[in-house]
Amino acid sequence: MHIALDAMGGDRGPDELVAGAVQAVLETDHEVTLLGDKELISRALRHHRKLDTIHIVPTTQVVLMDDSPFDSIRRKKDSSVVVAFDLLKQRKVDAVVSAGNSGATMAAAIKFLGRLSGITRPGLAGIYPTLKGPVVMMDVGANVDCRPQHLFQFGVMAAAFSSVLFGIERPRIGLLSIGEEGGKGNTLVKKTHELFQKSPLNYIGNVEGRDTFTGDVDVIVCDGFVGNVCLKVSEGLAEAILSMLRDEISKSFKAKIGYMLAKDAFADFKKRVDYAEYGGAPLLGFNGAGIVCHGRSNATAIKNAIKVAAELVRNNVNEHIAILLANIHELNDNDRQHKTESAKTAGVR
Amino acid sequence: MHIALDAMGGDRGPDELVAGAVQAVLETDHEVTLLGDKELISRALRHHRKLDTIHIVPTTQVVLMDDSPFDSIRRKKDSSVVVAFDLLKQRKVDAVVSAGNSGATMAAAIKFLGRLSGITRPGLAGIYPTLKGPVVMMDVGANVDCRPQHLFQFGVMAAAFSSVLFGIERPRIGLLSIGEEGGKGNTLVKKTHELFQKSPLNYIGNVEGRDTFTGDVDVIVCDGFVGNVCLKVSEGLAEAILSMLRDEISKSFKAKIGYMLAKDAFADFKKRVDYAEYGGAPLLGFNGAGIVCHGRSNATAIKNAIKVAAELVRNNVNEHIAILLANIHELNDNDRQHKTESAKTAGVR
Repeated sequence: MHIALDAMGGDRGPDELVAGAVQAVLETDHEVTLLGDKELISRALRHHRKLDTIHIVPTTQVVLMDDSPFDSIRRKKDSSVVVAFDLLKQRKVDAVVSAGNSGATMAAAIKFLGRLSGITRPGLAGIYPTLKGPVVMMDVGANVDCRPQHLFQFGVMAAAFSSVLFGIERPRIGLLSIGEEGGKGNTLVKKTHELFQKSPLNYIGNVEGRDTFTGDVDVIVCDGFVGNVCLKVSEGLAEAILSMLRDEISKSFKAKIGYMLAKDAFADFKKRVDYAEYGGAPLLGFNGAGIVCHGRSNATAIKNAIKVAAELVRNNVNEHIAILLANIHELNDNDRQHKTESAKTAGVR
Repeated sequence: MHIALDAMGGDRGPDELVAGAVQAVLETDHEVTLLGDKELISRALRHHRKLDTIHIVPTTQVVLMDDSPFDSIRRKKDSSVVVAFDLLKQRKVDAVVSAGNSGATMAAAIKFLGRLSGITRPGLAGIYPTLKGPVVMMDVGANVDCRPQHLFQFGVMAAAFSSVLFGIERPRIGLLSIGEEGGKGNTLVKKTHELFQKSPLNYIGNVEGRDTFTGDVDVIVCDGFVGNVCLKVSEGLAEAILSMLRDEISKSFKAKIGYMLAKDAFADFKKRVDYAEYGGAPLLGFNGAGIVCHGRSNATAIKNAIKVAAELVRNNVNEHIAILLANIHELNDNDRQHKTESAKTAGVR
């Protein structure tokens, strides 16, 4: 597997990204191509031993975090993210990983890879830790104004992803709403509920926000506005809880001693909920694989994103999506044929 | 102040609700009227000393948690929640508190109180603890499909509430979106952003989900679908974090000892984030005051809800809303007049 890493994306600079790439190639048999400022990348590589499985493709431009996505992709043709997707288009690499401007990464994927057949809205899937296993939420920010058909496709793509990455044969799909009964939710959710109900997917109905972390559902479907708000509310709350807890503990000497003793437990807990474990959010619905990482990604997150990207390609997530879509269409066709025949029979009477 | 408490709502039964009412009248000079099954309420009251400030209005029907809101209000005319709002309509009480079916509580408020002049969509405001002070989010579940004008009014109502309850003169209002720049968000948010920008309110622009818990904004505006999802994601995550932390701590003896020592700090932390501190979500935009409590509310939550309900009436939150609306209309009128005069001047030239 050969992964392209946008070495200019992210808030921490190339050193952290390069360190992640080095860790990934040392732990696997993947190759990584680093794209970006040759000087900066070479300097970062000097901290590590020389590896044949790390390559550099120099680029001269950088898409900044607040650049307009489509505009920057058009203007900055020699930026690390644009060249990375161009390499993927030419099949010189197998997948792209970027911790840069996520809108621009989406835009580059649309331009160079194009949509998978049968998918109208590709998107971003988020992976959350829960009390049991991980849960996949889609979309988490790529599509803010959606129609029912788009949400339905998010369910198909996220289910295929869940099967491929976590080995779940028929992932339980839940539709994020504000009540568990099918009649509850906004207009978009009510119409999407009908689409899922008619499908052969393992749809368990509406789920509520609190179900996100219990682990009783494998896939949670929502529009990108709601998904992104959830993602950021979760991040903000987790940070606030730990900060308030630290604050209370620091107020008493006894509690401080207690914290010292329980420190390993806190560390294990942090590891358990660490966003770095899965590296980032996979781009789903494109002719090609990619992972969008958090801007703050550390080396571990980048390493894991590279591994997940390779898994997506090795296990052919896109073929899984195509099979699921084909099954759904077949069922719909049979259904339509059945109805036509019933109508004919009714006519004969 | 005289508050009506729906003694049949909530998951914990009348004992807990009655205990909350007793605590409230003991700590304040308020009176409370308990509505519900006379036998059950009298039995619950026997655990407390006799108080002249607690009254009973017997009712024979109960709206269940999964009853259809408007249907149950129409059919169950002698239910505790319906009679409570009828008493408020007749001004025999000053406000209503209910931990029952929140949809039915909204429906009863619409039927008996009606909307405040100038408000098209009354709603529910949620109160969140943050690293600094509390933040008010509106709407948190009453209105799932909204137009920009509705969101704008949520901002007006929540700002008036924030002023009244927390003494903030010009609450900072943020619009919940998925990026801080004004151009980011879905269609609804972009259009709402324009309305706020033109208003005299203290609008600070878009805020993201993570800003909910930092305390840098006083009011967060969103539609009821997004707000309710946020509320439940937050509840679910807070529970999951504490549960995972307990789980890690229980794995080692040393950590258990540590936890024992830090226990008070954990308790203080829990108190700090406890939903019970503000009792529940105020109903805003009606000709009358009400608080919708969590179904799981304990006596403390009920006590605090009764106190907050009394504050809303005492400080006349509805008058504050009317004043804010009048200021906005005046500004719009001046703006329009100014434009007309400019047009005339242009014509004279």
